[in-house]
Amino acid sequence: MEQAKFSGAVERWGVQEVRLDGPNDGNPFVEQWVRGEFSGSGETVRTEGFYDGDGRYIVRFMPSFEGRYTFCLTASFLDGPVAGIFTVSPASAGNHGPVRVHNTWHFAYEDGTPYYSIGTTCYVWALQDDARIAQTLETLRHSAFNKIRFCLLPKHYDYNLGEPRSYPYEGTPMDSSVLTSENFNDYTGKTEGNHWDFARFNPEHFRHLEACVLELQKLGIEADLIVMHPYDRWGFSCMTREQDDLYWKYVLARFSAYRNVWWSLANEYDIMRAKTVADWEHYAALICALDPYRHLRSIHQCIHLYDHSRPWITHCSIQRVDLYKTAEATDELRERYRKPVVLDEIAYEGDIQHGWGNISGEEMLRRFWEAACRGGYPGHGETYLCPENVLWWSHGGVLRGESPKRFGLLREILSQTPGTGLRPHPLSWDCICAVPQEDGHELYYLIYFSFMRPSFREFHFDDETPLRVEIIDTWEGTVRDAGVHCGKFRVELPGKPYMALRIMQEGSVCR
Amino acid sequence: MEQAKFSGAVERWGVQEVRLDGPNDGNPFVEQWVRGEFSGSGETVRTEGFYDGDGRYIVRFMPSFEGRYTFCLTASFLDGPVAGIFTVSPASAGNHGPVRVHNTWHFAYEDGTPYYSIGTTCYVWALQDDARIAQTLETLRHSAFNKIRFCLLPKHYDYNLGEPRSYPYEGTPMDSSVLTSENFNDYTGKTEGNHWDFARFNPEHFRHLEACVLELQKLGIEADLIVMHPYDRWGFSCMTREQDDLYWKYVLARFSAYRNVWWSLANEYDIMRAKTVADWEHYAALICALDPYRHLRSIHQCIHLYDHSRPWITHCSIQRVDLYKTAEATDELRERYRKPVVLDEIAYEGDIQHGWGNISGEEMLRRFWEAACRGGYPGHGETYLCPENVLWWSHGGVLRGESPKRFGLLREILSQTPGTGLRPHPLSWDCICAVPQEDGHELYYLIYFSFMRPSFREFHFDDETPLRVEIIDTWEGTVRDAGVHCGKFRVELPGKPYMALRIMQEGSVCR
Repeated sequence: MEQAKFSGAVERWGVQEVRLDGPNDGNPFVEQWVRGEFSGSGETVRTEGFYDGDGRYIVRFMPSFEGRYTFCLTASFLDGPVAGIFTVSPASAGNHGPVRVHNTWHFAYEDGTPYYSIGTTCYVWALQDDARIAQTLETLRHSAFNKIRFCLLPKHYDYNLGEPRSYPYEGTPMDSSVLTSENFNDYTGKTEGNHWDFARFNPEHFRHLEACVLELQKLGIEADLIVMHPYDRWGFSCMTREQDDLYWKYVLARFSAYRNVWWSLANEYDIMRAKTVADWEHYAALICALDPYRHLRSIHQCIHLYDHSRPWITHCSIQRVDLYKTAEATDELRERYRKPVVLDEIAYEGDIQHGWGNISGEEMLRRFWEAACRGGYPGHGETYLCPENVLWWSHGGVLRGESPKRFGLLREILSQTPGTGLRPHPLSWDCICAVPQEDGHELYYLIYFSFMRPSFREFHFDDETPLRVEIIDTWEGTVRDAGVHCGKFRVELPGKPYMALRIMQEGSVCR
Repeated sequence: MEQAKFSGAVERWGVQEVRLDGPNDGNPFVEQWVRGEFSGSGETVRTEGFYDGDGRYIVRFMPSFEGRYTFCLTASFLDGPVAGIFTVSPASAGNHGPVRVHNTWHFAYEDGTPYYSIGTTCYVWALQDDARIAQTLETLRHSAFNKIRFCLLPKHYDYNLGEPRSYPYEGTPMDSSVLTSENFNDYTGKTEGNHWDFARFNPEHFRHLEACVLELQKLGIEADLIVMHPYDRWGFSCMTREQDDLYWKYVLARFSAYRNVWWSLANEYDIMRAKTVADWEHYAALICALDPYRHLRSIHQCIHLYDHSRPWITHCSIQRVDLYKTAEATDELRERYRKPVVLDEIAYEGDIQHGWGNISGEEMLRRFWEAACRGGYPGHGETYLCPENVLWWSHGGVLRGESPKRFGLLREILSQTPGTGLRPHPLSWDCICAVPQEDGHELYYLIYFSFMRPSFREFHFDDETPLRVEIIDTWEGTVRDAGVHCGKFRVELPGKPYMALRIMQEGSVCR
């Protein structure tokens, strides 16, 4: 009987990885299988394993409870089951479990800690060279981001014509030396010149991506994995259903046990011409069947919103559809879908030629606050021209923009929300006002004036409640105490754009 | 028989004023009447006169043709008609006649000169003291404005609690010393404390307004007269139908003959609670019947657009209805109504507490260019706090903002449009592009990038036409020649917001 290699102890929401040696002849990716059943006092989880190359088979498991667990593995190449026992210890500091939907429109980690998503997009940061990846992680470490969207497959697009560090399959890519920023689109979605064996994965490609997911996990950053996308010259966007299924199952078996994984079925699904809604629903069904941890699931559009009312969709992953009203659509989307609204693309700060990639830092920050004060979650991206064509939006590296350094204040203020999550409150037609999502908290108003520049504002909530006022300059990053007020009161403001106020109950009754 | 006083010579689109002496006993405003018929080789015009006080009766006439004219006056106090002859000379320099709708969505003076409206709003500038009025006119003289919207009746509103220089009726107003910016709204639309004889006008009030219209005329500025409005503590907004009719007829008799007059039936008609759509349609019918010169007619809303498809409405006078999409609605309004779209209120540059009055100069200028490049006409207003409460938006005075000094470039560029007027052209999803309204002109594109900040753009219109490119920094007010290009070409841009391009055919064929 085979000997399974595994750790005798793992923390809650960590990964128990059980390894088996097995055959490496033929094509183990399609000819062999391995699966496991893990049982503790709180759960029994069945999960699929995968072939990791070199005769190595792996089954991964994320325990949701503490205490003693047993497991039992079966495999096509085993004569009988392989069993084991291990202990799950309490989660270590900073490990709050996977992020779940909470309060209908919001998120919390499984341990109940609210999660306020401040996302960014770096489509293929993980497929750059080691130095760039290290630089990106260092940038993220010093940022306010707690979510990053990125692709598992390489990207072919304007500013993205180089070779990735690795490919997901065995084979050889087309000759990229013919590509220019003029002709690249002629190659999009084409297969000519590529030679891949879509039945043989390149395990190193995926091991590397897993290492990146774990690095993010250490930084407290959720990995919003874009499993499919249309920016492709290798044919990965137009594989057959059977090939796609193999890919999805491999991805699900490899990544599901990492607590910080989210599933983004696709970026700009609606410009993947080879795929239909039936395809997306099929992939979604695969995720639901094969991810036993119910990680968050979304699908991101270019123009036409997917039907976000589909029950498998946990939250709306939105690209703004209007050049002018962007984060301002949050309220409407909340109403329509009754799910968290994550504005994963509200244009990018930068100066490239495309209108989706050349807004100012001021406008990006404005969209962040608009989204947040409307009870949604904003996402960033950056596309500044650079001689080496290293743009954060695709490659990571360093941040050059003005907005990211200002997201920390927003995240800090969001994290101080009573309860979990904000909802829009109709205080006045000309400001954005948020209150705690649930009733029953003390009075708490977060008010944002966007591009408007009042020199003062008057308020009258009630005659009884003492209210502390803070004046927030979202651009300068300052919070100034403006005293405690009762009844009708007036707040002097600097007549500048991008100001906010926080008004909070302080004490019980006005004297 | 009475002797009529009039000038023997008047210029085309000038005013011939015929004066008669008559009774001043009783109430001549309602008990007497006077009217005239003016005939030249091109027209016969019947027009109503009015009582100007002190036994003086006046009939005014604006000739639309040159040459010999005769007239014949009748009046309630005359035994028989009074006739006369005068000569109409050619229009003097700068006199292009009244503004008319041209090319469906645009305007031209009656002599065919295109009119590109760059408007402002100073609701009661004409009811301030002489010094302020002189200051306002001086400001206008050095501005790019060629239209100003203002009220014939005094205004009661926040920052507008003082007494006007005069009232339209004989009587006495309520005591305004009780008013504060806290309580002023309690008095809006009320009549208590006022004592007016709504059957006896104060001719001096109207004579003064006419003088202001003439001063504007000298500056080449159209007077968009707001005949009714809701900002009222005197009861002028809730007179009876009969009182309103008397007012409208008096206004029409006095002002119609001035070529630079436009009729704005009301400002924010939809918050004048005492009036119904039937009332507005009735006033409109009065204008159509009693203004023989067919001056432009509009009605301006607060929230709910009037039905601008009504045939008496010559152009849409719009207040933006969305906090975010403002001038961007121009295309849609053009399509819907097929009339000129004048955005008379797209918020005001300033820093007061209200969201309609605290946008930046940058944002105001952006809205101007958006409107213009979408084939509409923008309007300005300014509401900067000031210790003396002199805000341009109501009182005139001086301009403190950053946007007005930048309107001249837009007006200059608009005036260089081939033919009359621009229409939106779908060049790309991420810029605003205008072309001449009519086909048949040489290639001409005015492209605006709004808040977007491209570092370069590529174009390919055709392979034959040489195109001169100008780079316009709408904020800095610079126009830079970027050479003549053929076929596919690239324009380097500074990666700043508020940039525009003008691309014009130069010569006939690329070599």
